[in-house]
Amino acid sequence: MSRLLKLAKDFNCFYFNKSYKDCTPFFIEDCQVGFLRDNVVKAVRQCPEAFVIGPSKQVTLNPGYSTPQERSDAIHQILSKWRSEGLFPALKGWRNECFDVKTSSGNPPLMKMERTGTCLFGVVQYGVHINGYVIHPEKGTCLWLQQRSSTKPTWPGKWDSMVGGGMSSSASPYETAVAESQQEASIPHDLLINVQPAGSVSFFYENERGVYPSVEYVYDLELPGPFVPHNADGEVDSFELVPVAEVTERILSSGYKESSAPVALDFLIRHGHVNAQNEPYLADIIELLHFPLHVTYNTGLSISTS
Amino acid sequence: MSRLLKLAKDFNCFYFNKSYKDCTPFFIEDCQVGFLRDNVVKAVRQCPEAFVIGPSKQVTLNPGYSTPQERSDAIHQILSKWRSEGLFPALKGWRNECFDVKTSSGNPPLMKMERTGTCLFGVVQYGVHINGYVIHPEKGTCLWLQQRSSTKPTWPGKWDSMVGGGMSSSASPYETAVAESQQEASIPHDLLINVQPAGSVSFFYENERGVYPSVEYVYDLELPGPFVPHNADGEVDSFELVPVAEVTERILSSGYKESSAPVALDFLIRHGHVNAQNEPYLADIIELLHFPLHVTYNTGLSISTS
Repeated sequence: MSRLLKLAKDFNCFYFNKSYKDCTPFFIEDCQVGFLRDNVVKAVRQCPEAFVIGPSKQVTLNPGYSTPQERSDAIHQILSKWRSEGLFPALKGWRNECFDVKTSSGNPPLMKMERTGTCLFGVVQYGVHINGYVIHPEKGTCLWLQQRSSTKPTWPGKWDSMVGGGMSSSASPYETAVAESQQEASIPHDLLINVQPAGSVSFFYENERGVYPSVEYVYDLELPGPFVPHNADGEVDSFELVPVAEVTERILSSGYKESSAPVALDFLIRHGHVNAQNEPYLADIIELLHFPLHVTYNTGLSISTS
Repeated sequence: MSRLLKLAKDFNCFYFNKSYKDCTPFFIEDCQVGFLRDNVVKAVRQCPEAFVIGPSKQVTLNPGYSTPQERSDAIHQILSKWRSEGLFPALKGWRNECFDVKTSSGNPPLMKMERTGTCLFGVVQYGVHINGYVIHPEKGTCLWLQQRSSTKPTWPGKWDSMVGGGMSSSASPYETAVAESQQEASIPHDLLINVQPAGSVSFFYENERGVYPSVEYVYDLELPGPFVPHNADGEVDSFELVPVAEVTERILSSGYKESSAPVALDFLIRHGHVNAQNEPYLADIIELLHFPLHVTYNTGLSISTS
């Protein structure tokens, strides 16, 4: 196994750890939208008005909530209660920002959920990243990386994509990209108009805080050599322009935000820097950059071992 | 569901038809490397020296063949016999060209198999495609498409990528790209040096001939406006330069080789022509452009419905 294949398995650790075996599928109506760890199932059992449990291993949101608004209100109440009780570390970073809960990237949301709660329910989180790059006359292609603020609640001090952020309820990927590029890196409008959509990555990550099935829409933005990003919202400590060969080493290191590594790796592959000549497991890795989250939840691709 | 999401399900029809339920997993030692339809299982039963059948629904190549050469020789004998008996239409196009049978893009081959037999055993086929494109001053980005020869045994007369071909045993993706670009489109060396590796697509297709889990390594090649590809091996009837908006319609039409549509669609996405603003189901589609074939066969992601 190559180092990059190992990395691809690491950012799909929810799958490769077989953690799904210990988790309980979470449904809204007859659609699976998440996975619950046992500590969440335990908390859910204390809210019988909001959830139907079992008889088979399954938790379903009370079907009496028949509209997205009713579901969102109920979940908001429960998460607020759990937060005030200090039940879950994930809720300490409470954002007052909601993510949509959807069964498919194109379907209307079934409900909204406070961002910090999504990893407790294991619902798919959608985000946006911008790969800011420079074609340097001597160093070749270089990527701008940001070092996250040492005061951030998640991944403090780690290296990350130049720009990245979660997609708030009802915001589009492009709107999110524009807003984040201004807040995080002060990209001026006349440069931002060159931003190019380039697809998405999907992966099934988990850590001590929770379960993260993640879709990141990716954009590429070629920047002129003299431009230097600077942060406007206090969430970034510094930016560094890194040649692509060094980016490969950086994403393999513990200094990089593990759940942003897929975005940089996808860039390196799409631009030909990681290819079948220098990476024998290329096709396996590319499949793991696009884990079938929507198929897993929607159409019955069983995630269990055969 | 959007038209492109439907297309993505169509080129993964082996999965979405649930055909795997009717097929028998095919193993070499303890690795699944394929799926057999019932008509192949029936033929396999006539070769008890070469296969171990059951007790559970499973066919395993005789473990007495302990080297890749022994396995390859045995399979060659069997496929030759089936060919002479006229058992399977797929073998009528016999190529005298072998594909590697591998459990992973980076692992050494477990055996070789005559190309036309791979769809009977449902083993992963690796190929290469080159997207030849032109940035046209008025029409914008255009793709060169080839119309396959009306005399080809598979997909005669259909539209296809500018250059594409299967990866013969022991050939690398890049070597295959170079050879095919010369045979199929007479790309001169001074243009071909600009070819850029850009990843791969994976999908799980089937048709009346057999089962096609397919990995296609993709390359992009920007071509100068005046260059016109011309065929050198008699396998192409014509080439046409098609603006990207029209390519989308073309791959949705019955005139396009269905198992090459993923390559063109991946190009349109990576280059931003199909994006989250014009395709709501973008993330679902991208996952289906990278169906986890290697995971499905290797690490126990069960393909069965839960």
